[in-house]
Amino acid sequence: MGSSLRELTTERGSVPSVVLVRPQMGQNIGAAARAMLNFGFEHMRLVAPRDGWPNPEATAMASGASVVLDHAGQFPDLGTALADCDYVYATTARSRGLVKPVLTPEAAMAEARAMIAAGKKVAVLFGPERAGLENDDVAHANAIITVPVNPGFYSLNLAQCVLLMAYEYARQTSDTPGARLELAGADLATAQDVQHLGDHFEERLSKAGFFFPEDKAPSMKLTLRNMFSRWGLTRTEVQILHGVLRKLVGRDSSGGS
Amino acid sequence: MGSSLRELTTERGSVPSVVLVRPQMGQNIGAAARAMLNFGFEHMRLVAPRDGWPNPEATAMASGASVVLDHAGQFPDLGTALADCDYVYATTARSRGLVKPVLTPEAAMAEARAMIAAGKKVAVLFGPERAGLENDDVAHANAIITVPVNPGFYSLNLAQCVLLMAYEYARQTSDTPGARLELAGADLATAQDVQHLGDHFEERLSKAGFFFPEDKAPSMKLTLRNMFSRWGLTRTEVQILHGVLRKLVGRDSSGGS
Repeated sequence: MGSSLRELTTERGSVPSVVLVRPQMGQNIGAAARAMLNFGFEHMRLVAPRDGWPNPEATAMASGASVVLDHAGQFPDLGTALADCDYVYATTARSRGLVKPVLTPEAAMAEARAMIAAGKKVAVLFGPERAGLENDDVAHANAIITVPVNPGFYSLNLAQCVLLMAYEYARQTSDTPGARLELAGADLATAQDVQHLGDHFEERLSKAGFFFPEDKAPSMKLTLRNMFSRWGLTRTEVQILHGVLRKLVGRDSSGGS
Repeated sequence: MGSSLRELTTERGSVPSVVLVRPQMGQNIGAAARAMLNFGFEHMRLVAPRDGWPNPEATAMASGASVVLDHAGQFPDLGTALADCDYVYATTARSRGLVKPVLTPEAAMAEARAMIAAGKKVAVLFGPERAGLENDDVAHANAIITVPVNPGFYSLNLAQCVLLMAYEYARQTSDTPGARLELAGADLATAQDVQHLGDHFEERLSKAGFFFPEDKAPSMKLTLRNMFSRWGLTRTEVQILHGVLRKLVGRDSSGGS
């Protein structure tokens, strides 16, 4: 179990800790653990969980993420839970009459990332399912995170809120931040393959009288060539197109209709 | 109901449509509707929902987001559902042996945003809960979206996957992209208030012999002044600090211990 944790992060403390304050339902604790592990968050702290700890319902719900629960710390109060933390965010939907900076998840996780890179310990607080964090909880935090939801509709549950923070943190720390673009399963044809396919097309289409009138032929040919190169054809697709061409334009003695 | 939809987006089609392909559980359809509405996605299309449509379990789960279900289109097959769409993304965790661009949610929603701004209709496909999209479904899509999760753990459910796409789209289209930083409930003190507080501190601390040795006094005073201005004090806090000062440093005839 410990080794699978170590595979996730190169060093302990390299992601924020998730602090669940007075969580109520065991299954929500388990769902939060799952949400976390999707994005490599593995440090959970529990403050006064309503139904005690460990909680079999949490473990059942966590399933493959039970490693997060196995390593979760349990604390009697929030002050104790945060004793070793350098910077603390409180997630809350409402402005509280407390004077705190209010950040989006994006801005907060950017800050958190910088602080963690500087060796700081960062925690994010999540309140009980029903009522959220109380003012006394928020007073422990350096800043507030509010998810910028539709002003007319807010229905994020605990695990979804945890999910968004972990997603946002992972998004920003990704090796390929937002620009990952690849072709799945591609065995791409070489430029020469594509060139030969263009030659084949031109040859067959010329014989079939396709390039007419003559003064339009060069631009028609250019359009064809450009299409083939733009498509990013695979080897298999090139072979299929050769076959299509033989069938459609004729003269292939082995061909049918 | 229609009017509350209109409040969400300035015009129809200004966000991607969510297409649930052969969804199984009604409650997951309802949860997807809730996830959508949090971030202003209100166009849902249902392709061959397993338990028929409308579905009372979906409506019960959707709760305040039932407006999304009321306007959801139902279609017998994916081709019909996508007939009017200009660009289609398929969400899938697995590479399929199909040659498609694979994008992160971030890259895909950036593209989608640009296409929608150019007047295109964009759809995002989500597969059935148990098995996800099949190759025949993915073949309808122009590109694949894969959420870059922990390679060792993937457990996003349907509503969570929908949530991440809607969050990502809303994040990028936000008026305050990631940099929203404000003070909640702040009635900030004026610079003059803060200046007076600094004066008060210096006066009292000088009388108490705090600024010692004398050659260090200027830098001690500067540090105090700088702290006060950096803190972003409110009027109330300034008053409290004046009171604290009177109590601690003495000479206030009205004060106690």
